[in-house]
Amino acid sequence: MPLPRERSPRAGMAELVDAADSKSVALIRRVGSIPSPGTTQSMNFCSNCGSRLVLKVPQDDFLPRYVCENCGTIHYQNPKIVVGCVPVYEDRILICKRGIEPRLGFWTICGGFMENGETLEEGAAREALEEAQVDVEIGSLLVIANIRHAHQIHVFFRARMRTAHFGITHESPEVKLVTEDEIPWGELAFPSTEFALRSLIADRRAGVERHHIAEMQRRPA
Amino acid sequence: MPLPRERSPRAGMAELVDAADSKSVALIRRVGSIPSPGTTQSMNFCSNCGSRLVLKVPQDDFLPRYVCENCGTIHYQNPKIVVGCVPVYEDRILICKRGIEPRLGFWTICGGFMENGETLEEGAAREALEEAQVDVEIGSLLVIANIRHAHQIHVFFRARMRTAHFGITHESPEVKLVTEDEIPWGELAFPSTEFALRSLIADRRAGVERHHIAEMQRRPA
Repeated sequence: MPLPRERSPRAGMAELVDAADSKSVALIRRVGSIPSPGTTQSMNFCSNCGSRLVLKVPQDDFLPRYVCENCGTIHYQNPKIVVGCVPVYEDRILICKRGIEPRLGFWTICGGFMENGETLEEGAAREALEEAQVDVEIGSLLVIANIRHAHQIHVFFRARMRTAHFGITHESPEVKLVTEDEIPWGELAFPSTEFALRSLIADRRAGVERHHIAEMQRRPA
Repeated sequence: MPLPRERSPRAGMAELVDAADSKSVALIRRVGSIPSPGTTQSMNFCSNCGSRLVLKVPQDDFLPRYVCENCGTIHYQNPKIVVGCVPVYEDRILICKRGIEPRLGFWTICGGFMENGETLEEGAAREALEEAQVDVEIGSLLVIANIRHAHQIHVFFRARMRTAHFGITHESPEVKLVTEDEIPWGELAFPSTEFALRSLIADRRAGVERHHIAEMQRRPA
């Protein structure tokens, strides 16, 4: 899905939540309050019946959940999947400058929140089209990044651009094909961006296509 | 997380939703209504401010979302991750009989919904402990299963049991170690269960530890 476009970012607010969790940032800006720890929105009311929620450990459970004592609905909150790919054309790598928060102005690879009703591979191809106008053939699994603090799993695939066409979008004011030497390592948006690019390059040099799994640490402030 | 324990399953209702989505089943039973397609709960009210939600395509988006026109919160709904492992002890494979719906009485491997604040590997180990009392060392990635219709991604790892200990739990009234020949192929709970077990065995015979990605089809009714 496209990340919300923020026209007047308030950098101070954005620092309050993890920068990788753009929904939290967007919601803080919209709602003007800080979401509960570990959530991406304020859980006050039952989405089913509208009653006030309580935070408690349901029967046979181990963890506190937002529970509606009126209709009985338990509002579980679970990690979200960010899915994407690294499009490659004749050995050059497609990167995008972010036109939206978080990390506006930093470089990234194509990716975003996976949608209901699609496969990982379809989501990765959709994000490449939405963010950089590229038509890709999804290849092998490249990285899985555990982002514990943001409650996210990032899944990136290798991808081959079917044509040389790419272009800017409202999410990406600048898109370009770069050689390995031209990657702006100091200006990458997220730890998982660097993890994916470094894994791609290492495997290229080794002549293999492995998958890599690691936990990403929070970016230093 | 533990799946809700259902003491008086209503099989007819359970057929209305995908059996792999136990939350939908539990919620239908609890709430007594059928959730909107593609959701695991009825989205009627804003969880932030309690106002009525409307279904519409937000600005700069492509898909209809549940939107609160009072406070501006967009209630995105995204796929959930089911994480698990196939515990092995001296070449025998640990399987569990399901004591809860969906697929009560069928055999499965250890797995459940990933929790916020954990990594995939931690979630896989936690599920093995919760469901079968086993202490595992998580190994390599075994399968990723796209479950499009249930809005789920299943991620299973290979796992080594650190000790021979295992036992029943409220989710698993029967737990056992089986040889490859003893796997009850006709009584497995989910397509992803079979996918994981067949992948494990194929790789053992080939002497490799690959990962396998595929889309699971809905089980025939």
